[in-house]
Amino acid sequence: MTLLEQYLEKKKELNYFGHATGLMYWDLETTAPDGAKEKLSDALTYFSTESFKKSTSDEYYNLVTKLAEPEEFEKLDDVMKFDIMRNKRDLDKMRRLPAEVYEESVKVTNKSAIIWPKAKQTNDWSIYKEPLAATIEMTKKVKSYTDPGKDVYDALIDDYEEGMTQDTIDKVFGDLRQELVPLVNKVVAAPQPDSSKFTFKVPAHVQAELCKYIVEYMGMDMNRFAQSETEHPFTTNMNIDDVRITNHYKEHAFIEPLFSAIHEGGHALFEQNVDHKYEGTAGASISYMGLHESQSRFYENILGRNINFWKPIWPKMCEMIPELKEIGIEEFYKEINHVQNSFIRTEADELTYCLHVILRYEIEREIFKGNVTVEDLPKVWNQKMEELLHITPRNDAEGVLQDMHWSDGSFGYFPSYLLGSIYDGMFLEAVEKDLGSIDDILAAGDIKKITAWLKEHIHQYGATRISSEVLDKVCGQELSAKPLIKYFTDKYTKIYNL
Amino acid sequence: MTLLEQYLEKKKELNYFGHATGLMYWDLETTAPDGAKEKLSDALTYFSTESFKKSTSDEYYNLVTKLAEPEEFEKLDDVMKFDIMRNKRDLDKMRRLPAEVYEESVKVTNKSAIIWPKAKQTNDWSIYKEPLAATIEMTKKVKSYTDPGKDVYDALIDDYEEGMTQDTIDKVFGDLRQELVPLVNKVVAAPQPDSSKFTFKVPAHVQAELCKYIVEYMGMDMNRFAQSETEHPFTTNMNIDDVRITNHYKEHAFIEPLFSAIHEGGHALFEQNVDHKYEGTAGASISYMGLHESQSRFYENILGRNINFWKPIWPKMCEMIPELKEIGIEEFYKEINHVQNSFIRTEADELTYCLHVILRYEIEREIFKGNVTVEDLPKVWNQKMEELLHITPRNDAEGVLQDMHWSDGSFGYFPSYLLGSIYDGMFLEAVEKDLGSIDDILAAGDIKKITAWLKEHIHQYGATRISSEVLDKVCGQELSAKPLIKYFTDKYTKIYNL
Repeated sequence: MTLLEQYLEKKKELNYFGHATGLMYWDLETTAPDGAKEKLSDALTYFSTESFKKSTSDEYYNLVTKLAEPEEFEKLDDVMKFDIMRNKRDLDKMRRLPAEVYEESVKVTNKSAIIWPKAKQTNDWSIYKEPLAATIEMTKKVKSYTDPGKDVYDALIDDYEEGMTQDTIDKVFGDLRQELVPLVNKVVAAPQPDSSKFTFKVPAHVQAELCKYIVEYMGMDMNRFAQSETEHPFTTNMNIDDVRITNHYKEHAFIEPLFSAIHEGGHALFEQNVDHKYEGTAGASISYMGLHESQSRFYENILGRNINFWKPIWPKMCEMIPELKEIGIEEFYKEINHVQNSFIRTEADELTYCLHVILRYEIEREIFKGNVTVEDLPKVWNQKMEELLHITPRNDAEGVLQDMHWSDGSFGYFPSYLLGSIYDGMFLEAVEKDLGSIDDILAAGDIKKITAWLKEHIHQYGATRISSEVLDKVCGQELSAKPLIKYFTDKYTKIYNL
Repeated sequence: MTLLEQYLEKKKELNYFGHATGLMYWDLETTAPDGAKEKLSDALTYFSTESFKKSTSDEYYNLVTKLAEPEEFEKLDDVMKFDIMRNKRDLDKMRRLPAEVYEESVKVTNKSAIIWPKAKQTNDWSIYKEPLAATIEMTKKVKSYTDPGKDVYDALIDDYEEGMTQDTIDKVFGDLRQELVPLVNKVVAAPQPDSSKFTFKVPAHVQAELCKYIVEYMGMDMNRFAQSETEHPFTTNMNIDDVRITNHYKEHAFIEPLFSAIHEGGHALFEQNVDHKYEGTAGASISYMGLHESQSRFYENILGRNINFWKPIWPKMCEMIPELKEIGIEEFYKEINHVQNSFIRTEADELTYCLHVILRYEIEREIFKGNVTVEDLPKVWNQKMEELLHITPRNDAEGVLQDMHWSDGSFGYFPSYLLGSIYDGMFLEAVEKDLGSIDDILAAGDIKKITAWLKEHIHQYGATRISSEVLDKVCGQELSAKPLIKYFTDKYTKIYNL
């Protein structure tokens, strides 16, 4: 067997193990009964551990290293070149971390991840303080091995959005903050729609059917797609031909699950539309969360919260949810763009969501600069809420304790959400330059043309282009919050008659 | 590590692989989209093959063999004694089969299994004839290695119902046939209920909810149970704490899925109620199909087709299916015991189902005695249908081609279905001896008392007691069709006013 054949053989096995863990995770969240979860978790741990062992074994590393040597590397096609390059870089990084430090970090993070839900449930910051502080220290320690000499927070951001730095984020988040705070102030002072009109019952099975209808309408290949129910919506995939989303239907609040479906549907389209030539290689493993969020949010916000998205399917909507007929599309449109200052990020509207992310980013940045201690966190959180949204959480559960991200050490993840939206402002300009007004495309029922455009310019490349490359190729310009600011200002000035 | 520790380590790994294949099979049938099935099948094949390799490796066999030696064996507890004994026997049997014969048999059976659905769909016996003949010859060849010196058909029966032989089956099926044919003749000549009353629409989600309600009512631990939808209903389990059934809801024929749920629910209760001490060992792997069918059929027929099963839950039934209120429980009871001579086994009622199985048993027996050739099969099938049910299939698709069992070489499986019912006649007597009339128990809404009895006397032992041992311990007597005949005669004489 050639080196490449040996490598591909190992890779195939790793992919089978990945299929097993992916499916076990899916089953854990969707179908497995509670009593079955302990054994299922054991099996999941077994396959994850074996996967980790196999992918970090000397045998595998030697194959990767040999294939990365110029003589061998030159013989590879582009798909395998990207795969080997990426694998080599990730393995080198991982191998810099001593086994005992890795084990220590797993222990520290697990402890904090276990305590967080209890702290949130009982609104008890005091029990979470120490494990969180330990997680922060551990994160710094890990980064000192994996990314020596690099600013810790920059290294963390890079994990979730390759190539991104605090400098860039400071600039675009700063620009956005400056325009957004006064805009939100104006919007929330204007007359608001009546949300109570939308609390009538829509049975879960009707919502499930409707969500399926809508993702198909968006251009999902239903032959390679599945949907199910979980506590929290997410997207996952076993491979390019097996992409799945979940939802949590709420019988007296159908709008939220509807937009979850559109959001997860955007993630799923990105995964489905990756070129098949990347199947089973690093090119199909998209770990750029900003870019991924840009796709889910493009569908959820830029398209889904546009009235023209709903026009062609309004008769269908009214057929499935007869109450909508009397309410009318205009009222529905106002409700799905209803802006209010609220405490919980995951329930926030398109506009204030940005401020929730800015708050978290600014806090994370100061933590790793050493300017904010864990002791200060609740106070700093509440001050920033006041500053950005003019409200103060009544307790830590609806304040600093609300998100799970910090509990498992995912510092640097939050900015991706908002970067996604900032990219979207730029993508919107690029789409309209190529295809004309999206209002017209949507109103004509041609949303699949937009999906085809996104596939051609973004999706098909999978992980082989990081966000800055995508922006460069697609928009021909550097990252800027201006297009998003323009979109927000135009849209909400109209809706709220400012 | 001691020998036992080494063995348990291997076994744990095999169980994890079993979990992966079990879950992949479940996913293939329930959730995976069509486009994902090829890669899922590849992964399933990988894990099955690796499992097979591991479980038949010399290393594993040596451990089993050493633990089976008297000195080591005596040190084991009862759970491990059964496990080692059973594993040793099965491995010895498997190792007698030369690898090339095994491979040949897989090829031959695959060919026949692939052609069968085509033959059935196109009603073309001619394309299936040769592959079927090859499968029969291959079956004989395999058995000549695995069970040398044993009658081939007895060896096949033993695979699905350990300890059972043609002599015993000839006796009990013969007794049953003699009484059943005239009883069915009388029943079908009597006035019949009006099935057309039951074709109103019951939405699939209502049926799913109702089926869940009913298996819980039967005593299912819902914390260790899941249900889903598939083309054909089945029961599967990952382990004792993860037992799952599937169903195929029919919007204009709700009774069939309802009884599928009760049937599969019976299988599931058996699997759930196995004592946890057998977890992960041969004691939890129940391969006695007759005994397994006796549990599913006990719930489906003996309990589920008794009017008293429905009395306590009739208000709930009418709440979920309002049409039933006007129809009334008496009419429903007649419909669920509606006897008619029909062609398709899987759609047959409680009485004629027995004759469908007897037909298949008698044909299989004669095939392996060399008295019936594949060439004769359609003719013999139709003659027997005439003899037993006085009807003649209009074509082979509704005759000899209807079942998949022969296509994959599962000769000897059919008799288990009817053996299950024959055991049930005996179990019914035993239950009533201990607990009193089941009519009263059911009418009082105490079905869980019957489930507790079955758990105590049958389920908890899992695979550690074969059927004949169960009959001996539970009924204290040898296999006999008389109790079933008595139950049939009493029940149908009343229902049909004979």
